[in-house]
Amino acid sequence: MKLLEERIRRDGRIRENGTILKVDSFLNHQMDVTLFNEIGKEFFRLFGDERVTKILTVEASGIGIACVAGQYFDVPVLFAKKSKTKNIDGSVYTAPVESFTHGGVYDVMVAKDFLLPSDRVLLIDDFLANGAALEGLISIVEQAGATVVGAGVCVEKAFQPGGERIRAKGVRVEALARIKSMSGEGLEFC
Amino acid sequence: MKLLEERIRRDGRIRENGTILKVDSFLNHQMDVTLFNEIGKEFFRLFGDERVTKILTVEASGIGIACVAGQYFDVPVLFAKKSKTKNIDGSVYTAPVESFTHGGVYDVMVAKDFLLPSDRVLLIDDFLANGAALEGLISIVEQAGATVVGAGVCVEKAFQPGGERIRAKGVRVEALARIKSMSGEGLEFC
Repeated sequence: MKLLEERIRRDGRIRENGTILKVDSFLNHQMDVTLFNEIGKEFFRLFGDERVTKILTVEASGIGIACVAGQYFDVPVLFAKKSKTKNIDGSVYTAPVESFTHGGVYDVMVAKDFLLPSDRVLLIDDFLANGAALEGLISIVEQAGATVVGAGVCVEKAFQPGGERIRAKGVRVEALARIKSMSGEGLEFC
Repeated sequence: MKLLEERIRRDGRIRENGTILKVDSFLNHQMDVTLFNEIGKEFFRLFGDERVTKILTVEASGIGIACVAGQYFDVPVLFAKKSKTKNIDGSVYTAPVESFTHGGVYDVMVAKDFLLPSDRVLLIDDFLANGAALEGLISIVEQAGATVVGAGVCVEKAFQPGGERIRAKGVRVEALARIKSMSGEGLEFC
């Protein structure tokens, strides 16, 4: 998606010798909802024929993108929570996720009420790097006996193993911007 | 807002002897983006004349509502983060927030780059109970020297002290559904 690639070139910042891409001015801290709308439209172009019944993302930075995209699909958007709160009864699907940005392992969880075996679930997230978050979401959908129709991610770091790992499971992954390489000097898209 | 009140009556569930209102089937776990659109439209009706330049919310459950509402205001949406990640440089405004649902105190933070003294900020959140989250957001906007034009919340528990406390600061608070009382038998709106 040219629009997103151009935006990453213009406003993305590469940090720590090319290991971290900061897109927090428009994607995952401050959010450009006009861009999110175009992203949602593109996900709908890619997955609109898949009879999606539910969108699943994970807190926090996937939520805005998933909600704006959800308007095109006209289905409920569900976000996996990262910690157990008093507001959840205990009747949840959980999966462990290893965090690239925070370090350590946390659990993601979804209340069982909201995923049914009949659901056709589109996963949406901002980043795909090591694939840990998507793997957690896939595990949750599988626990519910529902179907993953695919994963739409905004940015894939194609030089990290996540994309390959998720595709090897037979899951269709569509990344709107795929980064081939990154260094202190800049980045290259696939 | 009748639509939201009716939805709370229909799909909200009162737990723990009237102390907890669960709206996780449509507001803060599974999210009804069609409803969010009506909520966004209503916030725009209420605050559309305030020359808002930025919407600020806090992760996680405010993000979806704020992003969908942001489409009406045509301004960037910023979410305060709850923990320090590698993706933030250290140049941040922070405020402590006491959590009603989780217990304990956490910090919320916003990168200084994204709040300017010229900003006119609308705060958006799903719930207003003790007001701790909104107070944290107000502190962050004040640290930036920016202006809070008001706070739009979906559900106010008017029997808890948050709304009064925030309004006493001179902040305009608009709650789309104000709950006067809650018990095991049901709830009453103001």
